[in-house]
Amino acid sequence: MAKPVLPLAPIDRLVRNAGAGRVSAEASNALRNILETVATKIGKVAVDFARHAKRKTVVEDDIKLAYDQWKR
Amino acid sequence: MAKPVLPLAPIDRLVRNAGAGRVSAEASNALRNILETVATKIGKVAVDFARHAKRKTVVEDDIKLAYDQWKR
Repeated sequence: MAKPVLPLAPIDRLVRNAGAGRVSAEASNALRNILETVATKIGKVAVDFARHAKRKTVVEDDIKLAYDQWKR
Repeated sequence: MAKPVLPLAPIDRLVRNAGAGRVSAEASNALRNILETVATKIGKVAVDFARHAKRKTVVEDDIKLAYDQWKR
C-alpha cells in the first residue's frame, strides 16, 4: 500500500457515527487502507470507462458505472 | 446521505493516481459518497462484532472481519 492520502480523523468519525463508543487507532488505519483500496479499484475501472468514451476527464457516470460493476 | 465528512482533495488524488488525466468535481463527489457508504456499512458491522466480544472499543480485527463479511 502506498503512502496513505486520506486523513484518519474523518474515518474515525464515520465509525463513531456508525455507533462505536471508541475506535482504536489501528482500527481507523485498517479502514483507511480498505477505503483507499476500494477507491483505487473503482478509480482504475472509471479511467478505463472514460478512455472507452474517448474522454480524458473522469466524470460522475464513469465512477457510478465502475462501482456498479465492482459491487456485484 | 448525511453531511460529508471525507475531504474531496485526497479522493481526487486517488483517482488521478489510478491513471485519470482529469477528474470532474461531480466524479470526486460521487466517489466520496460511495466511500462514506462503504465505511458506514463496514463500521456498523464492526460495532456489532465489538459488542459481540463485549468490548466498547472497535479494534482492527472487528474492521477486518467486517470487510471480509461485506465483500463476499
